[in-house]
Amino acid sequence: MTPPQRYRATVEYDGTDFLGYQIQTTGRTVQGEIEKSLQKIAGAAVRIDGAGRTDAGVHATGQVIAFNVAWKHALIDLQQALNANLPRDIVITDLKTVNIDFHPRFSAVSRSYQYTVLNRPWPSALERRHVYHVKEPVAVAAMNDASRCLLGSHNFASFGKPPQGEVTIREVMQAGWSQHGDRLVFMITANAFLYRMVRTIVGTLLEVGRGRLAVEEVGQILEARDLTRSAAPAPAHGLCLVRVTYPEDAQAEIAC
Amino acid sequence: MTPPQRYRATVEYDGTDFLGYQIQTTGRTVQGEIEKSLQKIAGAAVRIDGAGRTDAGVHATGQVIAFNVAWKHALIDLQQALNANLPRDIVITDLKTVNIDFHPRFSAVSRSYQYTVLNRPWPSALERRHVYHVKEPVAVAAMNDASRCLLGSHNFASFGKPPQGEVTIREVMQAGWSQHGDRLVFMITANAFLYRMVRTIVGTLLEVGRGRLAVEEVGQILEARDLTRSAAPAPAHGLCLVRVTYPEDAQAEIAC
Repeated sequence: MTPPQRYRATVEYDGTDFLGYQIQTTGRTVQGEIEKSLQKIAGAAVRIDGAGRTDAGVHATGQVIAFNVAWKHALIDLQQALNANLPRDIVITDLKTVNIDFHPRFSAVSRSYQYTVLNRPWPSALERRHVYHVKEPVAVAAMNDASRCLLGSHNFASFGKPPQGEVTIREVMQAGWSQHGDRLVFMITANAFLYRMVRTIVGTLLEVGRGRLAVEEVGQILEARDLTRSAAPAPAHGLCLVRVTYPEDAQAEIAC
Repeated sequence: MTPPQRYRATVEYDGTDFLGYQIQTTGRTVQGEIEKSLQKIAGAAVRIDGAGRTDAGVHATGQVIAFNVAWKHALIDLQQALNANLPRDIVITDLKTVNIDFHPRFSAVSRSYQYTVLNRPWPSALERRHVYHVKEPVAVAAMNDASRCLLGSHNFASFGKPPQGEVTIREVMQAGWSQHGDRLVFMITANAFLYRMVRTIVGTLLEVGRGRLAVEEVGQILEARDLTRSAAPAPAHGLCLVRVTYPEDAQAEIAC
């Protein structure tokens, strides 16, 4: 008997046709599809742990999951077998063995999300599943000025609810917009996020871009610690979980 | 009565769910959907002319169409009405009035196509509809060397059949690959293209990239004027019609 080994996988998915990452009693979920694929390969139920429970419609290029499975062949063959059994909107882009105590959520030191806005009069036919269309011109410089007040450790109660417990303090290491033609890309990295925090921040910053909120009002909203003060969350389909970082990755990077 | 006016429109579409550009007796086509939308707006059947009859699965960001319609409101309102009536995978991104003798196909001086290859071990969940996945590493420099022999006026009978008539001579003004991480993008501009010419060129150049064809063999295939000598066409979903150029555009650019 091959003893079970713990694996860490990087997962890319198109969130369009999922009810979200987390398994539910009915409906198509990312976790559910991966567990189905693993069960076929392992011949027994395998539970996976994920780094972030992305909402319905939210995409990922860098979701991280972990699971224990007994596999007697090469690592690359396990990745091949998983991808062969997964639907086309989920792809395992990296697979490695990890220590048995590795947990994608609890071991993570930071998460990075990207939100993409298409800022032109007409929507996109080709990218309609992956960008949020904003037709009125928005002021990117003002949105960047407003993003700066989010940097550092703050109580983000105005921008989301905690997924569990009551602590609403989070540390934002990086937040800012870049412009690539008519595409506006918001990148944000934090130790962790509250529920719908990125989308609520983006919704609020877009109000600044439209001139409906002043730059300094974003700091006031943050200080208010009141979810009713922020704007409605921007739609799910513009959001993508791009990276989850672990202590071992930092060491690996230093070693290079 | 408002007299009919001729309009030129730039069209973006996601070719995934179409049987192609050209209208057919049954099945969903780009032309069919646009004509349906125009009929709703104009209250009568409107025939559109298109610049290029893209195949099933081929995308466009710069398809050009023209049609005659009597419209008494502002130009922007016609574009708005068209987009409101079109399905989400077709978008009119530009609309202007043109002379009655403008024809998107016969007036065009050149067409540009883009073909995108994802060159990494695993496919993409997010871009699976718009990139062709090639898992074995390909040599981009060799593919670029081979592209060079396509430049200029040649008989391209080895790379496609004429859509009508028998002339297989075409003039390629620009052809080359660029690399953006694991994305390889082929851009080609010609006065006109034979049926499946871009996909057959890409299929053949990828054989060079894989080392299965020598660079100089591409020139030999071209000279053979024999369709059986080239490789199978690369799949439709990597291809996108990005630009059609007209004499009036060149003048407009000079004027700027």
